[in-house]
Amino acid sequence: MTTLSPDIQAQLTAQSIELPSWAFGNSGTRFKVFTTPGTPRDPYEKIADAAQVNRVTALAPAVALHIPWDKVDDYAALRTYANDLGVELGTINSNTFQDDDYKFGALTHEDAAVRRKAIDHHLECIDIMDATGSRDLKIWLAEGSNYPGQADLRGRQDRLHESLQEIYARLSGEQRLVLEYKFFEPAFYHTDVPDWGTSYVQVSALGERAMVCLDTGHHAPGTNIEFIVMQLLRLGKLGSFDFNSRFYADDDLIVGAADPFQLFRILFEVIRGGGLNNPDVAFMLDQCHNVEKKIPGQIRSVLNVQEMTARALLVDAEALRVAQLSGDVLAANAVFMDAFYTDVRPALGQWRESRGLAADPMAAYAASGYQEKIETERLGGVQASWGA
Amino acid sequence: MTTLSPDIQAQLTAQSIELPSWAFGNSGTRFKVFTTPGTPRDPYEKIADAAQVNRVTALAPAVALHIPWDKVDDYAALRTYANDLGVELGTINSNTFQDDDYKFGALTHEDAAVRRKAIDHHLECIDIMDATGSRDLKIWLAEGSNYPGQADLRGRQDRLHESLQEIYARLSGEQRLVLEYKFFEPAFYHTDVPDWGTSYVQVSALGERAMVCLDTGHHAPGTNIEFIVMQLLRLGKLGSFDFNSRFYADDDLIVGAADPFQLFRILFEVIRGGGLNNPDVAFMLDQCHNVEKKIPGQIRSVLNVQEMTARALLVDAEALRVAQLSGDVLAANAVFMDAFYTDVRPALGQWRESRGLAADPMAAYAASGYQEKIETERLGGVQASWGA
Amino acid sequence: MTTLSPDIQAQLTAQSIELPSWAFGNSGTRFKVFTTPGTPRDPYEKIADAAQVNRVTALAPAVALHIPWDKVDDYAALRTYANDLGVELGTINSNTFQDDDYKFGALTHEDAAVRRKAIDHHLECIDIMDATGSRDLKIWLAEGSNYPGQADLRGRQDRLHESLQEIYARLSGEQRLVLEYKFFEPAFYHTDVPDWGTSYVQVSALGERAMVCLDTGHHAPGTNIEFIVMQLLRLGKLGSFDFNSRFYADDDLIVGAADPFQLFRILFEVIRGGGLNNPDVAFMLDQCHNVEKKIPGQIRSVLNVQEMTARALLVDAEALRVAQLSGDVLAANAVFMDAFYTDVRPALGQWRESRGLAADPMAAYAASGYQEKIETERLGGVQASWGA
Amino acid sequence: MTTLSPDIQAQLTAQSIELPSWAFGNSGTRFKVFTTPGTPRDPYEKIADAAQVNRVTALAPAVALHIPWDKVDDYAALRTYANDLGVELGTINSNTFQDDDYKFGALTHEDAAVRRKAIDHHLECIDIMDATGSRDLKIWLAEGSNYPGQADLRGRQDRLHESLQEIYARLSGEQRLVLEYKFFEPAFYHTDVPDWGTSYVQVSALGERAMVCLDTGHHAPGTNIEFIVMQLLRLGKLGSFDFNSRFYADDDLIVGAADPFQLFRILFEVIRGGGLNNPDVAFMLDQCHNVEKKIPGQIRSVLNVQEMTARALLVDAEALRVAQLSGDVLAANAVFMDAFYTDVRPALGQWRESRGLAADPMAAYAASGYQEKIETERLGGVQASWGA
Repeated sequence: MTTLSPDIQAQLTAQSIELPSWAFGNSGTRFKVFTTPGTPRDPYEKIADAAQVNRVTALAPAVALHIPWDKVDDYAALRTYANDLGVELGTINSNTFQDDDYKFGALTHEDAAVRRKAIDHHLECIDIMDATGSRDLKIWLAEGSNYPGQADLRGRQDRLHESLQEIYARLSGEQRLVLEYKFFEPAFYHTDVPDWGTSYVQVSALGERAMVCLDTGHHAPGTNIEFIVMQLLRLGKLGSFDFNSRFYADDDLIVGAADPFQLFRILFEVIRGGGLNNPDVAFMLDQCHNVEKKIPGQIRSVLNVQEMTARALLVDAEALRVAQLSGDVLAANAVFMDAFYTDVRPALGQWRESRGLAADPMAAYAASGYQEKIETERLGGVQASWGA
Repeated sequence: MTTLSPDIQAQLTAQSIELPSWAFGNSGTRFKVFTTPGTPRDPYEKIADAAQVNRVTALAPAVALHIPWDKVDDYAALRTYANDLGVELGTINSNTFQDDDYKFGALTHEDAAVRRKAIDHHLECIDIMDATGSRDLKIWLAEGSNYPGQADLRGRQDRLHESLQEIYARLSGEQRLVLEYKFFEPAFYHTDVPDWGTSYVQVSALGERAMVCLDTGHHAPGTNIEFIVMQLLRLGKLGSFDFNSRFYADDDLIVGAADPFQLFRILFEVIRGGGLNNPDVAFMLDQCHNVEKKIPGQIRSVLNVQEMTARALLVDAEALRVAQLSGDVLAANAVFMDAFYTDVRPALGQWRESRGLAADPMAAYAASGYQEKIETERLGGVQASWGA
Repeated sequence: MTTLSPDIQAQLTAQSIELPSWAFGNSGTRFKVFTTPGTPRDPYEKIADAAQVNRVTALAPAVALHIPWDKVDDYAALRTYANDLGVELGTINSNTFQDDDYKFGALTHEDAAVRRKAIDHHLECIDIMDATGSRDLKIWLAEGSNYPGQADLRGRQDRLHESLQEIYARLSGEQRLVLEYKFFEPAFYHTDVPDWGTSYVQVSALGERAMVCLDTGHHAPGTNIEFIVMQLLRLGKLGSFDFNSRFYADDDLIVGAADPFQLFRILFEVIRGGGLNNPDVAFMLDQCHNVEKKIPGQIRSVLNVQEMTARALLVDAEALRVAQLSGDVLAANAVFMDAFYTDVRPALGQWRESRGLAADPMAAYAASGYQEKIETERLGGVQASWGA
Repeated sequence: MTTLSPDIQAQLTAQSIELPSWAFGNSGTRFKVFTTPGTPRDPYEKIADAAQVNRVTALAPAVALHIPWDKVDDYAALRTYANDLGVELGTINSNTFQDDDYKFGALTHEDAAVRRKAIDHHLECIDIMDATGSRDLKIWLAEGSNYPGQADLRGRQDRLHESLQEIYARLSGEQRLVLEYKFFEPAFYHTDVPDWGTSYVQVSALGERAMVCLDTGHHAPGTNIEFIVMQLLRLGKLGSFDFNSRFYADDDLIVGAADPFQLFRILFEVIRGGGLNNPDVAFMLDQCHNVEKKIPGQIRSVLNVQEMTARALLVDAEALRVAQLSGDVLAANAVFMDAFYTDVRPALGQWRESRGLAADPMAAYAASGYQEKIETERLGGVQASWGA
């Protein structure tokens, strides 16, 4: 059986993946949001659920919050609550897509008053970061337009720069701003930050602590995502990943579910470019569990990243270089595929047990009774979902 | 100036486009549904709005209903109300995507009880058709799965056939069933009716009065839609169009907004294949007005179809054949493009005036005071939207 | 270690994959065809190379020919030559894309004389089938147009039907016609057989022995290919596969190289639908080895199909059904993925040895000295490539 | 009838579009290159043909050369020949995709000797620029890999930078380097300069006289190209356009043929961003006339750009701003579409006549007898095509 070298074990031990609080709430499509028993009603319950993921995997020690969905009166109390459950509060995500004022933009809006409101929202997010001890402010902008002519593309880009500058100036100490890009949706003609190039030029104009966030689901069909990973690492501007997977558009499926080999290639480039367990490159999930159970869905997700990281670490770098240098296409590909095709799961199970974890975290969670408990106890109240 | 020949005028006079009641309600994305002043609160108000579109264009004499969104106690009364406003009740659209029971399918569900419920819903729709005098039952199925392995693709296809058979058997007289296909969404791994081929084989297995519905927004990137129009007309199975346009996925934008030349090519093939003003081929809109005003959005839409039909009718068929037969690529393309590039709008304005309509229906609506009236009067109540 | 059950062993033993003669010749892009040492100069040398693939894998007992590229004076002699090397002559592929007369179409051409020539070419192919003992005539049509207006889409479809009818009528006994579809290229606006639906309606109009050929690289971005496999098997019209893989367009890469999980899903549906080792469903490769060595490229290809077939056979069908029926999305997916992630290579190696084959066919070929031999001996002459 | 304001006339008078010499040679796909009567046999004949385009349009006063396809012994003589025909020698295009040494890369190759050869080729191109008086060196790199693992993506990017630096350092005076990007092809897994972001960061690392070349056919499906135009103009890095159009991949069709409205939107952003008749932004064609006649194909192309520029200049910028500022989506879109739908062709015909040109350049060329002349006279010799 494949065994994991001490070096690989060390890398896997160091790995951590941040969970999105919203993955524990309900989500769906424009057509329907299905509800599920046991869904959290408030940020505390979301954190409690996230802590379960970490408990069985030791992989997910932080929870990202979304403002205003996760607003509470006392962030210190929330932080203590999280810490007591063994997790940290992580990245703060802003939201400028659910207020009627933002129908035609937020940071890019033609109206200075709307921009002011949107900037102030971000400043409030940084206040929260100060309270939660979060390092990163993640900005995903839903801004764009639906019809040609509707918007002045150029003016919006300039206003975006000005708005971001004001937000960036408010960051203190080690705090960072990460700017996500997305090919399309919810805007259907143009999006103000549609590609890595735009995010890169916008954050480069801000300063060193502004970085790009790469969401693996946010690209045009056929895009070679690992190439972008390579390029952003080369440029020193890959701030974070939003992991998920997709078959079509921004489907937000479990990472690795749609194309495991793509995840392998991405992680190989992360390792190649020095991005693994590098504090500058945050690993996060950004997913929706529309039809599957949410806590097991998150466990499956972090395990997928872990398993594929192990496979990517198995690539025989030396043999690969020899084959590449000799122009032996099939040999180079074979070295690469050999790692991908190696079944690391038994070795990972053993390694988990050696660390005092269950060999199979999915089974451990199922056996824990937690799911039954929340389904029984969480009655009444309003289930959390996007928009609440 | 271009003038419209008597033949073209006759074709344009005969043209009619069915409006979707839901276009007058609020719509949006999974991220946010923006509300708009004056939005209807019930089916009567939707029909009243639709009648405005017909009043200024004389192009939209029918309104499609969506069940259960447009359920009323007395369909005869609704029908009379519509007729008094100069419009008919048109196609009945079923809905199997907003009930918790349908989380894993409706007509394809593994559980016979759920299939029963979904079939019964369609039988109820046919009852409504009997009451409204509607000819067509349009079925769009949101069914599919999100993850490989989740569903038995083959079994679902067989169950779909059985369910459709039972529904088809209930149709009477001149009633028809039209089956829409859609590339993806809301399911993200597989969709049970994803392409024209699947819709075609399913309706062909039912009988003569089962036809394909082609929604112009429901195809993979790059698909040559006019080719499918040609093929379905050739096979005698093009039952209806859902017109809209898209840049990315199923964006449901105003027809002709994203790619006017594509709309031209589609209408050219409609004419070529005998589908224009052919009662077997219903023209319908299926759109969302997320950020633009709804009634003017619908007026703009039917005008786009009318204008592009006029352009397509201008193609000099004889000159085109000569060029095609001689293998003169540039000459054939030039004949085609000459029609597309001809500005038919002044001639259409004159023709409208000759028929007692305003030359510019958009301006006529704006001047009518109707928009201000509904924005003032429709206070309170719950605005209609998807799901209500 | 994973072991292969007797049933799986039996299925793998029965499996056979037809090789394309043209994979052994040079190929490339419109920009450049790179030559490689040892490339065959005639059909005999191509067959000799193909036999090497079969020798080390016992998986590839037939070689498809392409006419006119593989025309010889004496097909009986070619057949004997092949048989002596342990392989059969397989599918005959026609070619209507490299003659100046076919610039604007072949079977669809406006000019009856050109159609006559194209039909006669196919009749000649059937004569060759009679001589070679081939069962299948495979037709891929490069026909289409580059500019809107250039061609009469509808007329071409009708003429295609008439031409195919005449060809089909010439088939005798057990001979079959398989019609390939392709999304685009070499035509850039419309293609006459662009999707499975068109191929299906065309072959259905011919008769029972006309079937669809599914080339895995010939679909629009995002297309769910396993769904089409399921549907065609359900309809009894899946005649053959052209296996290859692609990242972008019709890239013709080694099967399984771009998306191994997609190949797994396709083979799972083949098994689910009764298409594995079913004589009605031929497995063929259709690939180009532009930058990699050709014989090892073909060995790698058939091994990829074999390995992924083994993985797909490992799916626990019973457990999968239980999970599907209970609506447990994650459990169903886990059963599915468990098979995909299982490393079957060691067990396959043992099984090969038990059959008297080398455990590692790639290594066995490399050690055989054959490559060095052909590189040394095949000097002079004109290397085979597309068009020769 | 629409008339052209003096300002629009001035803009159109100033407009110039560079023709690619290779458009006059034969081209095709990997499947077949069809030959055409009258095709040039050498660079002189290509220039003669290009001069015909300029003669009837007064729009195309420069011809881009491709090295080595257009190598001559005496560039001064070629320049004089061109000048005598009323055209200039324009951009010099390098070629690193047709030499066996470049199978695995040129400027990015692992082997320093191959990089040396590729760099030297570019230095030779600059020598030619000195002789021809050309300002721009355009670099399109076919470099990439076909299989995951085949190449070290990161190392190639670093070597690309070093190679470009050496080439850039050789430029003198007003000479510029423009770096083209392309989504894919001829490499099928990764391309070393696949997107505007990569081209931008590479040229930004060189200096002020290195710019991005945007080829309108080189993007992923659905990409909003006018957004990239806007962004590159904003960043001051849009060096040139390669105009063409496409339905699928890099189809190289006549500009405006596939999606005229997209061309309109692109030209609108060019105007909006100050790129029209700005010497920093070169307009070039890069097309293939596979099935249509080449000289008329080029005439059609420059007219398409001219006509769409005229439409884009008709946009009522003030009305557009008012509508945008008020959030009136339909009004803003209507202002935009009104310009697009206006038929400028009659006014352009009159304007041409006022300048001493034929109203219809296509007809003027057809009537000139030039085509018949070259078809009769150019017998023997080897027709120019890619690779010669």
